[in-house]
Amino acid sequence: MPHIPLDENLPGITGILNYRLDAALPIRQLTQILLRGESTLTEGEREMIAAVVSNGNECKFCTAAHTAAAAVLMGEKETVEKVKQDISRAPVSAKMKALLTVAKATQENGRNVTPAMVAQARQAGATDRELYDTVMIAALFSLYNRLVDGLASVTPTEPAFYERLAHILKDKGYMPSADRYAGLTG
Amino acid sequence: MPHIPLDENLPGITGILNYRLDAALPIRQLTQILLRGESTLTEGEREMIAAVVSNGNECKFCTAAHTAAAAVLMGEKETVEKVKQDISRAPVSAKMKALLTVAKATQENGRNVTPAMVAQARQAGATDRELYDTVMIAALFSLYNRLVDGLASVTPTEPAFYERLAHILKDKGYMPSADRYAGLTG
Repeated sequence: MPHIPLDENLPGITGILNYRLDAALPIRQLTQILLRGESTLTEGEREMIAAVVSNGNECKFCTAAHTAAAAVLMGEKETVEKVKQDISRAPVSAKMKALLTVAKATQENGRNVTPAMVAQARQAGATDRELYDTVMIAALFSLYNRLVDGLASVTPTEPAFYERLAHILKDKGYMPSADRYAGLTG
Repeated sequence: MPHIPLDENLPGITGILNYRLDAALPIRQLTQILLRGESTLTEGEREMIAAVVSNGNECKFCTAAHTAAAAVLMGEKETVEKVKQDISRAPVSAKMKALLTVAKATQENGRNVTPAMVAQARQAGATDRELYDTVMIAALFSLYNRLVDGLASVTPTEPAFYERLAHILKDKGYMPSADRYAGLTG
């Protein structure tokens, strides 16, 4: 049961964001920019970063949601599952391994990101902007995971829920109900 | 030295936010809403939450900045220092002790927030909205701490720097250069 009364028809992060729309709007905008905006990382790669961070924080809702989103965007489920299990042995590029390692360190604590990790990412072809965005996405999901679990939001258990959510995140992104926020922008 | 090239005239979070203005805008807006928007918690109390979270993450820049901001807003330095040392013995209300305890748990991991912590906050008079905002602020600074340390931004050592910054945060809030973002809103 959530720690505060949240709309029971809106599980996970949705009910939390719905509780205070003025705060939800910039959170959704930031997510849209980082996960769906222009980038040399694919949307699937960025969702994998979200999944790895959420998994590191043991946030069940976010892990299930972004694992499903990565799988839908990549057209297969295996890669994101293997990335969560062991980055170093997952079937992704050397650059993605290095960036996911930076994301995982950021999730634990920003101080855990070492110059050696950054050098390895650069050597594998990562740009400054990719390093920046990786830390940003890892930091953003460190926020999300804490909202979801810190308020004990409802976590659906049926895989079908996350399957549907993943398709919404693929097709509509993170601003699915922009009209609701009409009066708040400016 | 920062992990990626950042403007060396802009230490701490400022250089990081300046690197990507489109992502910086919603982060600044969210901070302004949570730390300076309408609330039954004072601005000083909210800055204390930021200081406690940053201290828990051992983020030197954010801890110094928000300790100084809390002190300037509260008109004295002792309370925020004592809160960082030991919440349970700090000279703050029972409600603030309970909310700071929730914030500290959120910083560690959202899953560490227990029903007992929430019940204690309620018993001390905390509202649902205060609990919500406490978790939100703790989650936001979990993001900030990771940006600052995950990118290894420059951390000034002179207390005078944080003293000046605290006065800016008191007088102008978190949107000090709104004109810079003019083309990005909409």
